[in-house]
Amino acid sequence: MKDRYKHSDMGRYDRNDRNKSSPDNEDRRSDLIVGRNAVTEALRSGASVDKLFVNPDAGGSVRNIIRLAKEKGVPIKDTPESKLSQMCGGMSHQGVIAAAACAKYVTVDEILDIARQRNEPPFIIICDGIEDPHNLGAVIRTAEAAGAHGIIIPKRRSASLDMTVYKTSAGAASWLAVARVPNLAAAVDDLKKSGVWIFGTDGSGEDYKSVDMSGAIGLVIGSEGFGMSKLIKDKCDYLVSLPMRGRITSLNASVAAGIFMYEAARQRGN
Amino acid sequence: MKDRYKHSDMGRYDRNDRNKSSPDNEDRRSDLIVGRNAVTEALRSGASVDKLFVNPDAGGSVRNIIRLAKEKGVPIKDTPESKLSQMCGGMSHQGVIAAAACAKYVTVDEILDIARQRNEPPFIIICDGIEDPHNLGAVIRTAEAAGAHGIIIPKRRSASLDMTVYKTSAGAASWLAVARVPNLAAAVDDLKKSGVWIFGTDGSGEDYKSVDMSGAIGLVIGSEGFGMSKLIKDKCDYLVSLPMRGRITSLNASVAAGIFMYEAARQRGN
Repeated sequence: MKDRYKHSDMGRYDRNDRNKSSPDNEDRRSDLIVGRNAVTEALRSGASVDKLFVNPDAGGSVRNIIRLAKEKGVPIKDTPESKLSQMCGGMSHQGVIAAAACAKYVTVDEILDIARQRNEPPFIIICDGIEDPHNLGAVIRTAEAAGAHGIIIPKRRSASLDMTVYKTSAGAASWLAVARVPNLAAAVDDLKKSGVWIFGTDGSGEDYKSVDMSGAIGLVIGSEGFGMSKLIKDKCDYLVSLPMRGRITSLNASVAAGIFMYEAARQRGN
Repeated sequence: MKDRYKHSDMGRYDRNDRNKSSPDNEDRRSDLIVGRNAVTEALRSGASVDKLFVNPDAGGSVRNIIRLAKEKGVPIKDTPESKLSQMCGGMSHQGVIAAAACAKYVTVDEILDIARQRNEPPFIIICDGIEDPHNLGAVIRTAEAAGAHGIIIPKRRSASLDMTVYKTSAGAASWLAVARVPNLAAAVDDLKKSGVWIFGTDGSGEDYKSVDMSGAIGLVIGSEGFGMSKLIKDKCDYLVSLPMRGRITSLNASVAAGIFMYEAARQRGN
C-alpha cells in the first residue's frame, strides 16, 4: 500500500542539473542513494533503481546487496572506490551507490489516507524548521520505527530529502511518507479541521508522561536552535516537555523527537 | 560536588601538540571550546577558562557571553571571523571560542561516588564503541539531562572528548563525569562486583518497557554499525530492545540511547 506513494518516474533529473533551481526542481528527490543500509532499503522497497555502482573489492554485506540487485534485475557496474567518492561528493558510500528514479513527496491528505488504510488514528510528525539533514534523517528513521504514518516538512528553512537525509535515515525515507508543504501553519490548520490534535514540544509544556497522545495526533518538533516558531506554537492544542534533571536545558532535536515519538507509540499500544 | 571532577590544570597542552600521541596525551581533553552553547556552559560550570576569543560583530547571545566572561574575570580578545574559523578548523563557532584548561577524565569509582553523594542507585551509561563524535556528544547531552551519574567510554575504537563532542553535547560535557577506560570488559566486571546490573541494548532483547531499570544500572549502548561487541554482550545481565513497527531494524545510536535513558529515568521516578 505504501509503495504507491514512492518512487515515480517524475522528478528524475540529470545529475548536472542538481544545482539549478527551476521551479519544479523543488519537488524532486536526489537520484543517488549512497551507502549499504540506504541502498539495501531502496532495493527492498521496490524503488525503481536504475543501476547499482559497486566497488567489487568491498567485502561484507556488499555481496548481499549485489545478490539482491541481481534478483531485482538491476544492472550492476563495477566502479573503483575513487570514482564512487567522486560521484557522491565524498560522502561515506561504503562501496555502493544506487542511481534510482526520484520519488515525489506526498500530500498531507495522502498521509491521512495511510492512517485510514491502517485503521489507526493519525500519528504524524511535523518538523518546524529542522535544518540539519542528519537530524531530519534521524527523525525520519525513528518515525518509521515508531509507527508514524508520515512526516510534514516546510519548503523553506528546512532540510529536504537529499542524499544525506536519505542515508542518515538508513533507508527509512524509502518507506515513510513525507509531505513538503509551502505553508506549515496552513497544513496544521487543515490537520486540526480533520480532527488531529496538535502537540508542540516546548520547554514550557507539561511533562510528556502526563498527556494523552493515544488519539489522532500531530507532534511538532522545533528547530535545533530556536524550537517552534511562534506562529506554530500558538496553534498547538497542547505543549509537552521532557523533564531535564541536569544543568542543560535542551536535547538534540532528533533525540528529543525520538523520546516523544516512543512515548506516543507506548500510549498507542505499541 | 560535581565540579571537583572537572577542569583541573592537568592535561593542558600546547595546541601544536594536538596530533602527537605521547602516552599521557590520551587522558587530556581538547583545550578549545567552540560555539555559543558550549562556551556558555563552560563559563557557567566554573571551568577555568583562560581566554575568550570573540567576533565583536557577532550579535545575539554573544553579548551575554561577553558579560558572563567579564563577571568571571576572563580576558576577552576581539578576533575576526576568519581567524576564529582557522582556530577551530572550520567548525561552526557562531562567533565565539574559549581556550580552557583541559579537564581530566574521572575514574569509574568516582562515578559511583557521585551516585553515593546524591543518595541514588547508580545510573551509568556505557558506550561500547561509539565512534561518531556527534553521537557521543548527543549521548552525553541526553545522559546529563536524564540524571545519569556518568558515562564510561573505552580508550580504543571510540570517539573521545574532543571539540566536536564538547560542542555537540551543548556543554553537557562540562557537567557530566566521563571515565575513559583501557578495558571496557574489566570495567563492566568491576561494576557488577559493585552491585550494578548491566543492561545491554540489542535487537534480540526484551521490550524495554517490561524490564525493571529502577535500581543500580549500567546501560550499554552499542556502536552505530555493529551494536555491542560479543564480549560485552555476554556480560550483560539483561538485553533490552525497542519495538520496531516499520521495516527498518535499528535506530540512530544516540536516539536509541535517549529513549532507553528516559525510560530508565521514568522508572526511577523522574
